[in-house]
Amino acid sequence: MAVSAATGSGPARKRVVIVGGGFGGVNAVTALGKLPVDVTLVDRRNYHLFQPLLYQVALAVLSPADIAQPIRSLVRDHPNVDVLMDEAVGFDLVQRRVFLKTGVQLEYDYLILATGSTHSYFGRDDWAKLAPGLKTVEDATEIRRRVLLAFELAERQMMEKGTHPALNFVIIGGGPTGVELAGAISDIAQLYMTRDFRHIDPSMAQVLILEGGPHILTAYPEDLQQKALQQLAELKVKVRTGAHVSDVQPGYVMVGEERIDAVVTLWAAGVQASPLGKMLGVETDKRGAVFVDGHLNPPGHPEIFICGDLAHFEQDGKQVPGVAQPAMQMGRYAAQRIGRLVAADLGSDGSGRDEQFRYFDKGDMATIGRKAAVANIEWPFKAHWSGFPAWMTWLVVHIFFLIGFRNRLSVFRQWAWTYLTFSDGARLITGSQELPGWNSQEDLVGVTAKPLDMNSPKT
Amino acid sequence: MAVSAATGSGPARKRVVIVGGGFGGVNAVTALGKLPVDVTLVDRRNYHLFQPLLYQVALAVLSPADIAQPIRSLVRDHPNVDVLMDEAVGFDLVQRRVFLKTGVQLEYDYLILATGSTHSYFGRDDWAKLAPGLKTVEDATEIRRRVLLAFELAERQMMEKGTHPALNFVIIGGGPTGVELAGAISDIAQLYMTRDFRHIDPSMAQVLILEGGPHILTAYPEDLQQKALQQLAELKVKVRTGAHVSDVQPGYVMVGEERIDAVVTLWAAGVQASPLGKMLGVETDKRGAVFVDGHLNPPGHPEIFICGDLAHFEQDGKQVPGVAQPAMQMGRYAAQRIGRLVAADLGSDGSGRDEQFRYFDKGDMATIGRKAAVANIEWPFKAHWSGFPAWMTWLVVHIFFLIGFRNRLSVFRQWAWTYLTFSDGARLITGSQELPGWNSQEDLVGVTAKPLDMNSPKT
Repeated sequence: MAVSAATGSGPARKRVVIVGGGFGGVNAVTALGKLPVDVTLVDRRNYHLFQPLLYQVALAVLSPADIAQPIRSLVRDHPNVDVLMDEAVGFDLVQRRVFLKTGVQLEYDYLILATGSTHSYFGRDDWAKLAPGLKTVEDATEIRRRVLLAFELAERQMMEKGTHPALNFVIIGGGPTGVELAGAISDIAQLYMTRDFRHIDPSMAQVLILEGGPHILTAYPEDLQQKALQQLAELKVKVRTGAHVSDVQPGYVMVGEERIDAVVTLWAAGVQASPLGKMLGVETDKRGAVFVDGHLNPPGHPEIFICGDLAHFEQDGKQVPGVAQPAMQMGRYAAQRIGRLVAADLGSDGSGRDEQFRYFDKGDMATIGRKAAVANIEWPFKAHWSGFPAWMTWLVVHIFFLIGFRNRLSVFRQWAWTYLTFSDGARLITGSQELPGWNSQEDLVGVTAKPLDMNSPKT
Repeated sequence: MAVSAATGSGPARKRVVIVGGGFGGVNAVTALGKLPVDVTLVDRRNYHLFQPLLYQVALAVLSPADIAQPIRSLVRDHPNVDVLMDEAVGFDLVQRRVFLKTGVQLEYDYLILATGSTHSYFGRDDWAKLAPGLKTVEDATEIRRRVLLAFELAERQMMEKGTHPALNFVIIGGGPTGVELAGAISDIAQLYMTRDFRHIDPSMAQVLILEGGPHILTAYPEDLQQKALQQLAELKVKVRTGAHVSDVQPGYVMVGEERIDAVVTLWAAGVQASPLGKMLGVETDKRGAVFVDGHLNPPGHPEIFICGDLAHFEQDGKQVPGVAQPAMQMGRYAAQRIGRLVAADLGSDGSGRDEQFRYFDKGDMATIGRKAAVANIEWPFKAHWSGFPAWMTWLVVHIFFLIGFRNRLSVFRQWAWTYLTFSDGARLITGSQELPGWNSQEDLVGVTAKPLDMNSPKT
């Protein structure tokens, strides 16, 4: 009797479908690759993106390829994993199927949903073109294009007319992304652009953060918020809190009745969860994130796991934030949990089935320019660091904890080289050579100087 | 009397306008930066592109930033050089003015025109979207997108339907670009993609070169043409000569009455000179290149120099080819010649005014995949090399002779690392996820296999 099980094909292997190749999905899939299950990972992209460094692509420090990793190469050693470049568009939770855009239906025994979040323009989607956010490689190269192009257009206009619109860069939102973008733009203007332009003074560029709430970096303790404000001030970044943006137009933004000119406007204000959460038909919060229990399951669905930004998970009365660490831990937890469930089903192990997910918070960090950061450290000791020590910590953590893939070394080597030397290579303007609102700004008060007499010799 | 010259401002400095930041323009500007003239370089892009390595961006070996260098950083140490991101749209040769797209007019005493060439679709510009060529960074990322996407779509269709269109990559044109693209696509399919796909067999991909003339690599001696054919055959690249493409459609090309299916079609067949040559109102050849004399001047215009692809320059009865070396030498010659003319005008030196340009041909090389090349060496000795020795030569030459800029070492270091390890980083599909003609191919005869039962366990 026992023999038949050994010679037969045994019970059918469980099928796991993972939707999303971000931190949640990729950590789940590499853990599931070692388990006796069949896995299909679906993503619209062919690569996993190391999002914490995306702002460095936007500001021309890194190339997209430095922080992206083809998903197929991550699962190359796991023959039980399929990768499908496709998009989930619906679910049948009764039949346990995922519907894909191309018409494929995937059946699952377990589903891991980790499709993250997108920008929220609070119902004003027409602002998206005027104030791009930073979620994708395309977003990053678009921001890079706009920021670099502003200096080029100003130089050209200065040579032609002896005046150019003030180089105001307005960042809407004072969270970590807004602060990191602001610091990096200021660095570019103050340190690097000044070497390259003859007629404009790039150091006159103004970077302004508009934050609707009373504080920037609301997730950080108050002393670090203060430190961040100081460090931003040292980089000549201005911060206005309580500034509710009422309109975004080509060339300017409105804060209440006040008009603020902007050659480039960037969006770092709001995110909403991927629409797939709502498609499940389970309860979501106002951002569209799915309420999950201690097993990361939506109520009544022990076979579905929600990971990362898409999950609304509360711990000690606080919602776990939508950053990389929780997503990674959730992905690993979901994989381990599926492993335990499968093993229990197979009768070999029933232990630990009720161990619940607990976010192990090591802390949060945000860089402010090239030499400073704020770090709210929770582990291995509690500390609030700022300035250069925090920046060094950020560097080490991003190398050793976050770039946790097979080519960690090669990615880091490229990255460190580019970043430490601030080589010029990535400072490319690709695509269109237009900036929204640039021409309409010609009659605005701007920076003026003696027009260059194109016919007179320079000295 | 002699004092007045010393205390006065002296004669006005001569103004040089350079249009184009390719090999010709950049070599001219760095030489002119050391001379007592005022220079304005105009380019539509903010970067100089190291075009001989562009095919490696197209095939995901390198990132755009690895082979591009911001023009401003190249002239950072030359305060007499202005850079203007703009586009020349016309000339007044009598008043000596260049008209720019934005309305700026630049007066010149000397004009260097080095705007290169673009694709020629022989009057069929509608083919451009179906068969992209390889001239710009945008071209390269588009080719990368299409080639990588073809494998992803095939995998998806195989999983869904158990069949996919044959992975035929058709390259129209058997010159160096066509041969290099073909070898690189074959390498990707044979060596790298096979590790990453589970359901399709990427090594079944077919790469086909369609050459209208009787030979590929017509600029090379016959023995090297033969070697190239052998090396292409070893990479399973098929070559058809005398194949006149009569139509390009989504999913296929027509050679006479014969239909050849193609998931991706690339254009490497024809180039035409930049339209600026014709705008000069001087005599041009049928490609639009300007006939120039021994001083690189169009007849009757000793103040205008044409460099690179835009020049039709004959030496020993043969036209100098439109590749990097002649463009670089022409740019340097034009700068030296201007230096001599200016010096003579100032009365300090009249020597050497009639020294004519002579192309110093060191030879030509084209790579064929990752380990082979053909090299027609002219200097420092004459030799015909092929295979690995030619490939090593190509490597050394591209490092030491061509990447001649300030960050040669840093660019090379990044490049060598990426290239030698063939890291996965650059293999990104950005932009649209559609391929022209893919859907219409579903009913074509293609590669078939047992459809994947999405519901059955894998073993």
